[in-house]
Amino acid sequence: MSTIERTGRTIRLREPPVLLAEAAVGSQKERQGPLGKWLHFVFEDAFAGTKTWEAAESAMHQKAVQLALERAGLRETDVDVALAGDLLNQCMSSSFALRQMQIPFAGMFGACSTMALTLGMAAILTACGAAERAIASTSSHFCAAEKQFRMPLEYGGQRAPTAQWTATAAGAAVVARKGDGPRIEAVHFGTVTDYGVKDSANMGAAMAPSACRTIADFLEDLRLKPAQMDLILTGDLGAVGSDLLQNLLRRERDTEIRAVHQDCGCLLYDDTQDVHAGASGCGCSAAVLCAHILRRMREGSLRRVLFAGTGALLSGVSPLQGESIPSVTHAVLLTAQGGTV
Amino acid sequence: MSTIERTGRTIRLREPPVLLAEAAVGSQKERQGPLGKWLHFVFEDAFAGTKTWEAAESAMHQKAVQLALERAGLRETDVDVALAGDLLNQCMSSSFALRQMQIPFAGMFGACSTMALTLGMAAILTACGAAERAIASTSSHFCAAEKQFRMPLEYGGQRAPTAQWTATAAGAAVVARKGDGPRIEAVHFGTVTDYGVKDSANMGAAMAPSACRTIADFLEDLRLKPAQMDLILTGDLGAVGSDLLQNLLRRERDTEIRAVHQDCGCLLYDDTQDVHAGASGCGCSAAVLCAHILRRMREGSLRRVLFAGTGALLSGVSPLQGESIPSVTHAVLLTAQGGTV
Repeated sequence: MSTIERTGRTIRLREPPVLLAEAAVGSQKERQGPLGKWLHFVFEDAFAGTKTWEAAESAMHQKAVQLALERAGLRETDVDVALAGDLLNQCMSSSFALRQMQIPFAGMFGACSTMALTLGMAAILTACGAAERAIASTSSHFCAAEKQFRMPLEYGGQRAPTAQWTATAAGAAVVARKGDGPRIEAVHFGTVTDYGVKDSANMGAAMAPSACRTIADFLEDLRLKPAQMDLILTGDLGAVGSDLLQNLLRRERDTEIRAVHQDCGCLLYDDTQDVHAGASGCGCSAAVLCAHILRRMREGSLRRVLFAGTGALLSGVSPLQGESIPSVTHAVLLTAQGGTV
Repeated sequence: MSTIERTGRTIRLREPPVLLAEAAVGSQKERQGPLGKWLHFVFEDAFAGTKTWEAAESAMHQKAVQLALERAGLRETDVDVALAGDLLNQCMSSSFALRQMQIPFAGMFGACSTMALTLGMAAILTACGAAERAIASTSSHFCAAEKQFRMPLEYGGQRAPTAQWTATAAGAAVVARKGDGPRIEAVHFGTVTDYGVKDSANMGAAMAPSACRTIADFLEDLRLKPAQMDLILTGDLGAVGSDLLQNLLRRERDTEIRAVHQDCGCLLYDDTQDVHAGASGCGCSAAVLCAHILRRMREGSLRRVLFAGTGALLSGVSPLQGESIPSVTHAVLLTAQGGTV
């Protein structure tokens, strides 16, 4: 029997690869948030020792990868492939981070779903023997994202109540065919979904339908009920999108997840930090997963987590051309060592 | 014994997946080139029935995927995952093309190496059973690329002799675990390489070192000599980069490939088309592979081809910030049915 098989739209890994180690880094605003003390490294400021925000994001990305390797007790040459992506034009943060390293680099793009996408791909590549060990990583940077997608930072534009705050953070995980750590038991690549939302200051609304689809399809494929999960973790719908997701799942797919649902966008910052609807950016779910959720899985307080990364597939140009915002949600099923589906 | 195994830095697929069908589309300039008659569809003009160049690129991308499916006798729902990427900011061409389709979408980024990257990933996912059938696709558009990376088209800036012309083209291939067609026997993900070239009007020079590294590493891993290949196909080094690659391989890796080397950038247009150093863009190698090389493999006039896609990892911003141009080269080994390594 093959150890990798499809169940409906979901890929089951019968000999699940493990997360050997992970690392999350952030800047000052992330340090001040509720998860700040769990970050593995905090940069002094948003320049991270560089001269541009883009280079800063790249430096943070690289730091997360280096720390994850260090925490796994590995060198660069122990890793067969790095799966990485980000939201800078042409995934610059990833390319420039990996330029410093002797690791083959397969670039990926999933907008804010990138951590789930790269983790899922790393899981498959290690499970099938294409790699013994793989890195999954991503990053984002508030200033670089604002400048690229919205307004010059100096302009000081007012943010909408539905807007989310791009995390200045990065996360990386080392996935291996064998070893100890939380396991990746299933991978689900999402299908692009577009309900016609055009407001680029309300990404939560744009992404909720795709999260609904992926979560419902996944649970259906594996014949799981939400109550059988310790946590269904979306990232990054924020407050607005989280509500919409719960409502959509109830209405369209007869599924109630409120009791087990949390969203990375609502975990990284708290209400005093003036982030409006929550956090966003590739680095948000990467940091929440690597600093917080995987730690809790290692401690044993979470045993079965569906991590569903949500991504809004817009560019700086597409909304100006009148396009709506398609989105995609990729998911991985994480289980604590010794757990099983 | 596992059917997927690593040999050095290269992944061997012992039960190689096959290319069921492929399709290449282009615009008028591509039709006028030496491979024009082999394109599966030609658009009337650069707008491809849309109102913006970005939407046009997406329409071409979608057309290539649809034609590849049609030629394989498949429907969208017969495909488990689409691996696609492009050079537009946030891979808009891919996301918007896939938005119209009911196929799970894993976005990838490899700049002009994208066709090799997505083909390689599709091969691994089908070989290991994560997908029964997968799409690998990419696209590029001259006007969209000029606007995004260089100058407003209306400015009419003079192009450097080393500059390449971005192809207005797209290509897609259907990869399957079982069936008839050329096979993918090995996959090699490249490592980011940067020799410090800063001239963004000379991408061939920026990419040649990475092509040298991947080709030499691949041949070394599989103990192959260039003479054992019918073709080593790079894309898209153009005339300047091709010369540099041949020289670098000779000098740094004691390897002579001149007799079997061709470059996609030198095949798509001819000397009368005023493209200076040749063609480039994700769509260039995709179209050359899907319209020309795979056809020749199906006809039997090529039996063993190393397709090494080259990508320059720069953004519109990075050269303005004084950065050099890192690059990456991904490779797949294609053999005609019945051939073997």
